[in-house]
Amino acid sequence: MPTHSRFVTLEGGEGAGKTTVLNALREALREGGDEVVATREPGGTPLAERIRALLLDPSHESPCAEAELLLMFAARAQHVHETIRPALARGAWVLCDRFTDSSYAYQGGGRGIDATWIAALEHRVVGLRPGLTLLLDLDVARGRERTRGRDLVPDRIEAERDEFFERVRAAYRARADADPGRVRLIDASRSADAVAAEAVQLLRAWRADG
Amino acid sequence: MPTHSRFVTLEGGEGAGKTTVLNALREALREGGDEVVATREPGGTPLAERIRALLLDPSHESPCAEAELLLMFAARAQHVHETIRPALARGAWVLCDRFTDSSYAYQGGGRGIDATWIAALEHRVVGLRPGLTLLLDLDVARGRERTRGRDLVPDRIEAERDEFFERVRAAYRARADADPGRVRLIDASRSADAVAAEAVQLLRAWRADG
Ligand SMILES: Nc1ncnc2c1ncn2[C@@H]1O[C@H](COP(=O)(O)OP(=O)(O)OP(=O)(O)O)[C@@H](O)[C@H]1O
Ligand SMILES: Nc1ncnc2c1ncn2[C@@H]1O[C@H](COP(=O)(O)OP(=O)(O)OP(=O)(O)O)[C@@H](O)[C@H]1O
Ligand SMILES: [Mg+2]
Ligand SMILES: [Mg+2]
Repeated sequence: MPTHSRFVTLEGGEGAGKTTVLNALREALREGGDEVVATREPGGTPLAERIRALLLDPSHESPCAEAELLLMFAARAQHVHETIRPALARGAWVLCDRFTDSSYAYQGGGRGIDATWIAALEHRVVGLRPGLTLLLDLDVARGRERTRGRDLVPDRIEAERDEFFERVRAAYRARADADPGRVRLIDASRSADAVAAEAVQLLRAWRADG
Repeated sequence: MPTHSRFVTLEGGEGAGKTTVLNALREALREGGDEVVATREPGGTPLAERIRALLLDPSHESPCAEAELLLMFAARAQHVHETIRPALARGAWVLCDRFTDSSYAYQGGGRGIDATWIAALEHRVVGLRPGLTLLLDLDVARGRERTRGRDLVPDRIEAERDEFFERVRAAYRARADADPGRVRLIDASRSADAVAAEAVQLLRAWRADG
């Protein structure tokens, strides 16, 4: 699968610090004068954000596992088509808060959908991988603590039990083990400043190499 | 792919008479005392109806072809899981206004997505075919005339050009040619009563056989 060197994704469990780190990376890249598109999944276009609302709303009918997976990839297809590919084509950096690795971790590890099927969707519908993925690895309980104050009503996926998030974490770590050149594991248990500093350093080294 | 003898679908282009015929079939089966679940696609569950709204709303961002296909199959996965399989399991008839043949016709024929990929989704996500499909075949222009009075604002798919609907019709006819035991083509250019009478007769013969 083709990768793009200016396409960088943030991955990790709930409250691991993805959004915090993404903001730090954006500032670091903008200091260099480059255009940076910061986006997120599920979401990143008006239609994909509406799909996100269907996926995360806890007050409506829950999608079955296959419907959840297809909604995630429908949103991703649109996001890649409307936002990510055009931005990369004009030379911008794209920083994305979650991407296909989240489907392997949540729908694969968490819900038990086989990775072969997820890979078939990835090849057909996405056809593009980030050059660099920063995986923020954190104990499930500590992630929960970090988000406790923020989220008054947990969304449908946040409301899952700890066993679910343990499977998600294990699936993420397996992806880093299988593809260490792309997926860099960061110990997210340290202070926000320390984690952001490591992430910025990894990105600078990556940019200097490419 | 397994079929189910009490699962019957109505297919055809815009304004061909699917909903009219479905109502006639429902009455005919109910006279026999059987439970009949009449449903439609995209839709048939609260979540799937919300996906339908995303798909058909002409005032929002249009999904790219792959996103449209995945949204259709996400809605279908949910519909099969929540509505169709439970109804068949308790012995009800399920009459469905559009089903997977519509994806082959509209996303395949209309949008040009290859049938192999649609078949992969069908096998993985649906895993079930109707025992009987009635294909209402009608000239594109005549279908348009029939719906003209009804639809003040055409939905996003109805707003396509005639060439699109000609490809849809050809793809439907190819499906009837390839699988004539399941897909029965009905000439829908006759009066509503004549078309409904032929459909009811086909269903009665089908029920007597099974
Ligand atoms: N390294 C850290 N140490 C302590 N707190 C942190 C750290 N990183 C982020 N936080 C705080 O923890 C909370 C969750 O961080 P953030 O929103 O960045 O995580 P996230 O991975 O994006 O979460 P979500 O999965 O919910 O989107 C925020 O309140 C943030 O300020
Ligand atoms: N055989 C027929 N001859 C003339 N008019 C018909 C016939 N069948 C249905 N109609 C009328 O044509 C219009 C479209 O019929 P209907 O809604 O059943 O089609 P449909 O295939 O369900 O359309 P859509 O694709 O828009 O759902 C309705 O106003 C209906 O009363
Ligand atoms: Mg976040
Ligand atoms: Mg209709």
